[in-house]
Amino acid sequence: MTTTAANDRIIALAGGVGGAKLADGLSHLLGDKLTVVVNTGDDFEHLGFHISPDLDTVTYTLGGVANSQQGWGLEGETWRFMEQLARLGGPAWFKLGDRDLATHAYRTNRLREGATLTEVTAELSAALGVTSRLLPMSDDAVRTVIHSGGRSIAFQEYFVRLACGVPVDRIAFAGAAAAQLNPAIGALPRPAAVIICPSNPYLSIDPILAVPGARDWLKGLGVPIVVVSPIVGGAAIKGPAAKIMQELDAPVSALGVAAHYQGLADGIVIDSCDEALAPEIAALGIAVHVVPTVMRSKADRVELAGSCLAFARTLPRTPGAEAAPASTK
Amino acid sequence: MTTTAANDRIIALAGGVGGAKLADGLSHLLGDKLTVVVNTGDDFEHLGFHISPDLDTVTYTLGGVANSQQGWGLEGETWRFMEQLARLGGPAWFKLGDRDLATHAYRTNRLREGATLTEVTAELSAALGVTSRLLPMSDDAVRTVIHSGGRSIAFQEYFVRLACGVPVDRIAFAGAAAAQLNPAIGALPRPAAVIICPSNPYLSIDPILAVPGARDWLKGLGVPIVVVSPIVGGAAIKGPAAKIMQELDAPVSALGVAAHYQGLADGIVIDSCDEALAPEIAALGIAVHVVPTVMRSKADRVELAGSCLAFARTLPRTPGAEAAPASTK
Repeated sequence: MTTTAANDRIIALAGGVGGAKLADGLSHLLGDKLTVVVNTGDDFEHLGFHISPDLDTVTYTLGGVANSQQGWGLEGETWRFMEQLARLGGPAWFKLGDRDLATHAYRTNRLREGATLTEVTAELSAALGVTSRLLPMSDDAVRTVIHSGGRSIAFQEYFVRLACGVPVDRIAFAGAAAAQLNPAIGALPRPAAVIICPSNPYLSIDPILAVPGARDWLKGLGVPIVVVSPIVGGAAIKGPAAKIMQELDAPVSALGVAAHYQGLADGIVIDSCDEALAPEIAALGIAVHVVPTVMRSKADRVELAGSCLAFARTLPRTPGAEAAPASTK
Repeated sequence: MTTTAANDRIIALAGGVGGAKLADGLSHLLGDKLTVVVNTGDDFEHLGFHISPDLDTVTYTLGGVANSQQGWGLEGETWRFMEQLARLGGPAWFKLGDRDLATHAYRTNRLREGATLTEVTAELSAALGVTSRLLPMSDDAVRTVIHSGGRSIAFQEYFVRLACGVPVDRIAFAGAAAAQLNPAIGALPRPAAVIICPSNPYLSIDPILAVPGARDWLKGLGVPIVVVSPIVGGAAIKGPAAKIMQELDAPVSALGVAAHYQGLADGIVIDSCDEALAPEIAALGIAVHVVPTVMRSKADRVELAGSCLAFARTLPRTPGAEAAPASTK
């Protein structure tokens, strides 16, 4: 057990709101020692904008400007654009706040100028005062597709327009096979641990893992990989994770989450109310840490982040991983 | 002299603010009997949006939602998008109001879907309650280019970013030679008259006339063509018309305007303060009508519109033009 790690860098994997909250706690503790690899599987083109919902959620949350009520978009947002677009008969199913729109316009413009999504993400997060590094999983297009009753549904169609109202038979990641893992990810120095934030395993983390080389990169780091269960007491804090697990015949519980990450995660953080599941999870070969995981306040985020880091430090790492870091930068 | 014309249709040519004001007066009197052919030479792409400043000015003005203070954009506009875009370090030189942005997003989206600019213009003007028909001069790209000291400057760069702050050596209309006159224009039934609104002759009307076939179409109508001078007392009411006329060595006066339209216009409406120029203008073979032309109120717009229509009715038309209209629809 080391508490004075020379290497205190952490890599987190995150998607939407829950993941962003823990990433925010980690960022509070670690600042520029934290790199967050963010899902881009739910990126899409809308009204000509390149919209990256998860990158935006993480950026806004770590920038302290996320809307705390609605779980997406900016605090204190206004809706003049949407009101007028509706008046003109334009597509109104995807809500774009007046200030949020600036993010999409900025990103789209920079991408058109030839910047990579990684570069644009760095610019946006710097502009919003984010001190940690945010990296899209890939600069290439990977698009989550929901297969339901013989139909292929683009992710935002499923998530927003259909409000997750159709059963999920299968989830695919179009473009993943041809996508390149963000080169900046492969170049990251070996961290002390990897934290998989409490994001939807199927919709937020699986797209990252679907990028060729992502799993090998994670395993090859030789450091503890800790996942935080987004399922608490058999339900998702937010979003369709529980519904999807049920539809895919996975146990809707922290045990189901642990089983999903078996072979990848070394440890799992589960909520106190799920303590009874600990022995079954441990039987999967995954170490269990039980703490309150529901983040209602900034203090909760920081507390859970600290708890995850402390737990990760108790887990064994691959021999030589600390002695011979991939990089000493 | 007919005052009970069976054919009371009117075609107007217009560009920016001054032209839109007279078009609004005409629209008030004529409703769906008025077709306004609008300059698209200052259209441009910005942040991925297809922006049509003159179409927007005419649409907003006839829709009664134009910003009366700034001369562009919408009344009661808000600026959250621009504020945030500036915060993110995005291009802030071209101001896009939150609601105005909906127009650009709607247009861009529809064009991307395969609609023509003519179709989109009809949709937008219908949504804003415009009763007259607005037609872009062409569905093809014609782009006004300012040549200044050996440089070629895109129109909005000149007009907005440089605030017309460089001398104009020459004005070109890129793409005009290959552009097709809007087919809907050629299909218009013969009107009672054509009114060239008090728009900048060089920047708003010349681009329309530069589209192949536009001049022939106008002359071939065989109806009186009346121009309203945008130059009053040797100055432009708004915009760089006077400055450009000086730089191009044209007399900065209603006489200069008349000379510019010689061979095309049958009559010109000049302001009362320019009455002394009437004999010289008449010597060019252009009939002159002298009235107050400065439009400070809606009543002024309607008054001037009525005055133009009455003047047009006094002008001779090509023999047979009334007896054999191009269409009797």
